[in-house]
Amino acid sequence: MKTYLDCIPCFFKQGLASARILGTDEKVQKHIVDNIAKVIPSFPLLSTPPEMGKIIYDIIKDALQKDDPFRELKQKSNSLVLEIYGDMKKEIQNSSDRLLTSLNFSIAGNIIDYGANHSLKLEKEIESITRKSKKVSRNSINFQYAKFKKKLEKAGLILFIGDNAGEIALDKLFVEEIKRMYPGKRMVYAVREKPVINDATLEDARFVGLDKTVEVISSGSIIPGTSLKRCNKEFISLFKDADIIISKGQGNFETLSDEPEPIFFLLTVKCGVVAKMLNAETGDIVLKENKNGSRTL
Amino acid sequence: MKTYLDCIPCFFKQGLASARILGTDEKVQKHIVDNIAKVIPSFPLLSTPPEMGKIIYDIIKDALQKDDPFRELKQKSNSLVLEIYGDMKKEIQNSSDRLLTSLNFSIAGNIIDYGANHSLKLEKEIESITRKSKKVSRNSINFQYAKFKKKLEKAGLILFIGDNAGEIALDKLFVEEIKRMYPGKRMVYAVREKPVINDATLEDARFVGLDKTVEVISSGSIIPGTSLKRCNKEFISLFKDADIIISKGQGNFETLSDEPEPIFFLLTVKCGVVAKMLNAETGDIVLKENKNGSRTL
Repeated sequence: MKTYLDCIPCFFKQGLASARILGTDEKVQKHIVDNIAKVIPSFPLLSTPPEMGKIIYDIIKDALQKDDPFRELKQKSNSLVLEIYGDMKKEIQNSSDRLLTSLNFSIAGNIIDYGANHSLKLEKEIESITRKSKKVSRNSINFQYAKFKKKLEKAGLILFIGDNAGEIALDKLFVEEIKRMYPGKRMVYAVREKPVINDATLEDARFVGLDKTVEVISSGSIIPGTSLKRCNKEFISLFKDADIIISKGQGNFETLSDEPEPIFFLLTVKCGVVAKMLNAETGDIVLKENKNGSRTL
Repeated sequence: MKTYLDCIPCFFKQGLASARILGTDEKVQKHIVDNIAKVIPSFPLLSTPPEMGKIIYDIIKDALQKDDPFRELKQKSNSLVLEIYGDMKKEIQNSSDRLLTSLNFSIAGNIIDYGANHSLKLEKEIESITRKSKKVSRNSINFQYAKFKKKLEKAGLILFIGDNAGEIALDKLFVEEIKRMYPGKRMVYAVREKPVINDATLEDARFVGLDKTVEVISSGSIIPGTSLKRCNKEFISLFKDADIIISKGQGNFETLSDEPEPIFFLLTVKCGVVAKMLNAETGDIVLKENKNGSRTL
């Protein structure tokens, strides 16, 4: 998708929210906001919003003079999720639809609140999101679970495109469940090439032990999304060959929505622009096949 | 109040919303957004938000090459309200608390939707807002009607600071009711010196016949608010002498919140920053005495 004019106020909100999460003072926050403002006139609307996400991240990096300002937050998110991982695993094992339960945890991971500062709080947050997700999965045109399952069954090659740190540990539960239900398929999980905001990298995948469960690669992307022109050859080849692509989060949706491959977008809708595109509401949980994903398996 | 960093995303939203209301195409909208971005780094946060409102308005004026781009919209708002004025008047006359009913219409005027394109729709909108207002007036710490009425009774000089076109015709009902209930007091209604966004000027006051009911003056303000340093001597003198000042709308609140005079702010809360300042929620209807307004009558 292109960048809409309505994304522009949001860029400032994002920059400001990030600066505050990182504990900066108002002077640094103003500096960050001013630098975002300076970039706006030259930012082409034909670019996707995550391209600006990367620019904002670089502005924050420069302001804080840190290579990976979100590093501690990412590690904290990963650790917190790992603390409750065992309980989640048991819940999946005890549920009537294990795949759906693990999918629900995975989508819950997509909106882990940075503010969640201990595992109990996080567990409650995940509980509340999975409740919402369960409700949606019973009755929503934007939650195409039956269709997803059917495609998954038939697929030989599954490509999973991850999103954030923390979330990646909940994706692990989903990945494990897919592997258990459909053994013998090739599944590859792709992460970002370099740190960008709180997006998961190989370091995060290794930290949560995802590399022990599934083949993990870098997509080559250094933006908080997956722009094919910025991805590496290995990823692009898998992207073209995959029978089903599971794309997590809004950043991946924003960069992949125009691709013709058979992608299922699994995300929480975080803004009005994407809500409109998906015919959904902000806050909705969506599992939806790419409208362009017409390639039959 | 000063400008908060959270106001900055909102400046872009306001500029964009105005540009759209005025029927501009995306290219002009982008031009307006870019020009707002260019101003941000040099805008001092110690200024009030309506100072930026004026800058945004000037950017829009330049982009459209029009002296008063909102002129038609303002005239339409005034005309629409005048169409239903008679019915509102009757409703006040038939109500058990005429002053409160007229106050409710006045506050309803503060959120007249630009989109309301005929009088029936407008009437329904006003109905829905007055319902909300009536509910609030029964039970809210932010709706100090009894205190307001007491101050009004004792006042010798009442200064009313208007806000938008359209709204001004509903203020007329309120002003008429104050005059009927408390005859013999001096009341002055102040409008902006020059067109700025959809704010009411002398032209609007005359169009709705407010000048036949009450003494109408220009405050001298050319921003969408009332910054005393930008006001004329006549207004400042009245402002200092008034026993009660009725300040309509958020723009007047944003510019007058730090003044020590006995101001009652009557507004619909339109953003999170002002909501926090007033200990209210966005969308709330507020009638609240200035916390600094300790001067006894």
